[in-house]
Amino acid sequence: MRDSSETWFDKSLDILTYNRNQMVWSILVTIFGDLARRPGDRISGSLLSRLTEPMGIKPEAVRVALHRLRNDGWITSERQGRTSRYSLTAHGLTESDAASPRIYAETHHAEEAGPWHLLLGEPGPAAQRSEAERVWRGRGYVPVAPGAYLARGAAPSDAPDFLVIEGLPQQVPDWLRDKIGPPDLTAAYQALETALDAALPQITKAAQISPLETAILRVVIVHNWRRALLAHPDLPAMFFPAHWRGAACRDKVMTALAALPRPALDRLEETQRNG
Amino acid sequence: MRDSSETWFDKSLDILTYNRNQMVWSILVTIFGDLARRPGDRISGSLLSRLTEPMGIKPEAVRVALHRLRNDGWITSERQGRTSRYSLTAHGLTESDAASPRIYAETHHAEEAGPWHLLLGEPGPAAQRSEAERVWRGRGYVPVAPGAYLARGAAPSDAPDFLVIEGLPQQVPDWLRDKIGPPDLTAAYQALETALDAALPQITKAAQISPLETAILRVVIVHNWRRALLAHPDLPAMFFPAHWRGAACRDKVMTALAALPRPALDRLEETQRNG
Repeated sequence: MRDSSETWFDKSLDILTYNRNQMVWSILVTIFGDLARRPGDRISGSLLSRLTEPMGIKPEAVRVALHRLRNDGWITSERQGRTSRYSLTAHGLTESDAASPRIYAETHHAEEAGPWHLLLGEPGPAAQRSEAERVWRGRGYVPVAPGAYLARGAAPSDAPDFLVIEGLPQQVPDWLRDKIGPPDLTAAYQALETALDAALPQITKAAQISPLETAILRVVIVHNWRRALLAHPDLPAMFFPAHWRGAACRDKVMTALAALPRPALDRLEETQRNG
Repeated sequence: MRDSSETWFDKSLDILTYNRNQMVWSILVTIFGDLARRPGDRISGSLLSRLTEPMGIKPEAVRVALHRLRNDGWITSERQGRTSRYSLTAHGLTESDAASPRIYAETHHAEEAGPWHLLLGEPGPAAQRSEAERVWRGRGYVPVAPGAYLARGAAPSDAPDFLVIEGLPQQVPDWLRDKIGPPDLTAAYQALETALDAALPQITKAAQISPLETAILRVVIVHNWRRALLAHPDLPAMFFPAHWRGAACRDKVMTALAALPRPALDRLEETQRNG
């Protein structure tokens, strides 16, 4: 479907699909989360193909990924004549909604002031701690050291076995910054910023672009952004290493998404690429 | 020197010297700290005997303890004719002065509100941590967990390797209370309170009592109090176990000391007991 003469869309897509190790099911999560997150939204199998094929994803891989997401209770499908139509389940909608404020926020709300609290537990065996760490992480806490969990807001009333300090983090040492923002994540943001820097001049020039092309560029940008963002806790800049480009990437992602407004699903279903 | 007919002084002294495992050098530290803490204050060897003999301490034990304290640079001695006179060194004065606000405070200033800070270090080997713990303890910090040190006031500027949380302790769990106030210390306060409860009715009746007897009762009370008090960090009540009698003991010790005003050293040197 791609023209032999390379358009700026082709070049931008090539730049933005720098990460070749993406999981197809995860890209589908991005597609539904970005384009079909309202209750009742449906995406046809043929639209999914038109969105993913330009990214270099094979139809069989999409079928396998759809199967997996259905088994996980993330999406559901219905058959209408010759075509299948897919939508997020209630579970998939809830999870997508929960992640979207963090993904789409124009400014990083984690910089806001306000109380924090640290829970400090009794020293115990490492095995016990890793289970506790899993539980507290699930409740939104950042494990900062063995048995030490940090979170915003007031302390919980159901943790009598912890020393609780309510206050503000005044200093974050390098060892903790490197633990919260490890080298692979630092590199992921740097790669995303490099790609955005290369693609943004064209994208923001608002040249002729179809709804489908707009949707494809949105998805690849949101996908790289979401994967990096959700791999680390939502913390103010002081918690990240010196060369952390998370905030710079947010600015550039938001600039790109503003230049690529989300197309309505019915227009995407109607049109062919370049149509 | 004790009368065969038991006086209330004898009974009180008997009650208050319940702890038979005291180190004589430590009792001498109490004597100098309570009675001779001003620069220039001196205590003769014979007065030391008159103070310690009623407590059941043998003259040889006093000589050994004086030798030890001289070697430690805590006291110095000078010979005047037939008698030796002992005084605190500059070091001994400084240390005694440093401890005295905590020992003699009428109310427990540690209850005051105000900022605290917690230093949380990088997890490391236990051997490294115990050395660090010694250092931070020396700087007035309470080790609350491995690598975690708590203190009042603002954070230091010379600890870049720590996560620093400034705020207020909101909750202290039982395991930490029991670590800060272990069973032997809880029992020490309980024993002191029991002795004071038995001795206070007589002491506060302000019956006939000599300056020497006053000094002896002061010393045994201050000694038991000081030993318990300085064995744990100076923290608000919320950091101690439920049956902790530290605050109750302070009230009763202060009541006793008010009824036993510190005699002037020259009067003590002049008088014999009951003189």
